[in-house]
Amino acid sequence: MADVKLIGSPLSPYVLRVMITLSLKKVEYELLQEKFGEKSELLLKSNPVYKKIPVFIHHDRPICESAVIVEYIDEVWPESGCGAILPADAYHRALHRFWTFYVDDKLFPSLVAIGRAATAEGKAEAVERVRAGHLLLEEAFVELSEGKAFFGGDRLAYLDVMFGCFVNWIKEVEEFLSVELLDEATTPALHGWAARFREHEAVKEVMPDRGTVLEFFKFLHAMWAKEAADAKN
Amino acid sequence: MADVKLIGSPLSPYVLRVMITLSLKKVEYELLQEKFGEKSELLLKSNPVYKKIPVFIHHDRPICESAVIVEYIDEVWPESGCGAILPADAYHRALHRFWTFYVDDKLFPSLVAIGRAATAEGKAEAVERVRAGHLLLEEAFVELSEGKAFFGGDRLAYLDVMFGCFVNWIKEVEEFLSVELLDEATTPALHGWAARFREHEAVKEVMPDRGTVLEFFKFLHAMWAKEAADAKN
Repeated sequence: MADVKLIGSPLSPYVLRVMITLSLKKVEYELLQEKFGEKSELLLKSNPVYKKIPVFIHHDRPICESAVIVEYIDEVWPESGCGAILPADAYHRALHRFWTFYVDDKLFPSLVAIGRAATAEGKAEAVERVRAGHLLLEEAFVELSEGKAFFGGDRLAYLDVMFGCFVNWIKEVEEFLSVELLDEATTPALHGWAARFREHEAVKEVMPDRGTVLEFFKFLHAMWAKEAADAKN
Repeated sequence: MADVKLIGSPLSPYVLRVMITLSLKKVEYELLQEKFGEKSELLLKSNPVYKKIPVFIHHDRPICESAVIVEYIDEVWPESGCGAILPADAYHRALHRFWTFYVDDKLFPSLVAIGRAATAEGKAEAVERVRAGHLLLEEAFVELSEGKAFFGGDRLAYLDVMFGCFVNWIKEVEEFLSVELLDEATTPALHGWAARFREHEAVKEVMPDRGTVLEFFKFLHAMWAKEAADAKN
């Protein structure tokens, strides 16, 4: 048990990815909670390059970056729990990795930009970017799921986890800032997927509930507004 | 042969990664040269999300993003040529992937920033970021190479290819802009590695020579200077 540790907090979608993977794999671990805005000595020592969560520690060796960690877990515990997270087919694996890259590179930064936007125009532009991204992912979902429940078909696979860690964030941004990001009319397949993902047993075990996410998002939103005001002055 | 195609140009370090991998694996392919500043119909159709090279096309199915492509090639041709590019050990694989992420996320953007810097201060700051990054990679090299020639030990592995695609760029930036980025005194192990990488047969087969890289860098440098001047006016 003490051989598998995770530094982080489930409020970080990047940490949540790792927690969902460990939950799917039924791998036991110790969660070393990291408080927002503080950086523990262990974190600084374990991730001196980025000083960021999540850090996964296995046999006292730290591994950083959520995508790297999830692939590592999949390789070390290939048969455990749900079995492999990465699809068996190399082309599908490539698509799961590509869309994960897209989510990290474009989609989540645009989601954050909605919360940080200082003007109505900036907010509208960021909303449009997220909606356009969801349309792309809607197409990818139709291709990859082959009419089944998840990106991985009948079961959760890599892209489900890597994108799914954001579903409650998307929901809270929608409600708190009165925008539509993942609506049933425009993205029906993805809308249904998000609901199924949220209800998956391995996800429910570790995903913070919407109230908790909302409180944290309100806190971030107020912090960003203060930062923007300070930057102006 | 026609079943394996690569859209790109060896002048792009990201395309070069794929070409070095294919060279190491002795996989035959058709290079569909993409001219700088133009985007072919095939490129736009094959990578509608990023509209960027490289795109790898296997059995008419496009795969985008260099890291995704290289992993795909390694999975589809595991035994071909040099054998596996990713190390056999899961922890080493994680480190190779982490440092590749760092190179793409921080190091190469800082290298470009040297060329784009509009002020001496901006240039000096970018040089410092690259030098600091090389120091981190020097440590990683010492750990991963275990006293041998490459990040992969006796032979080229994933991180050799993913970082090595930049060695001639580093050299040209150093000479053309009179800066020191990868000097023997500060980063002796990496300095030696870069020379060995450049001389590796599979690399020499595909890497553009320094004169060609220099000409292209001069062209980019002039273009960036013009862009900066236009932005000012």
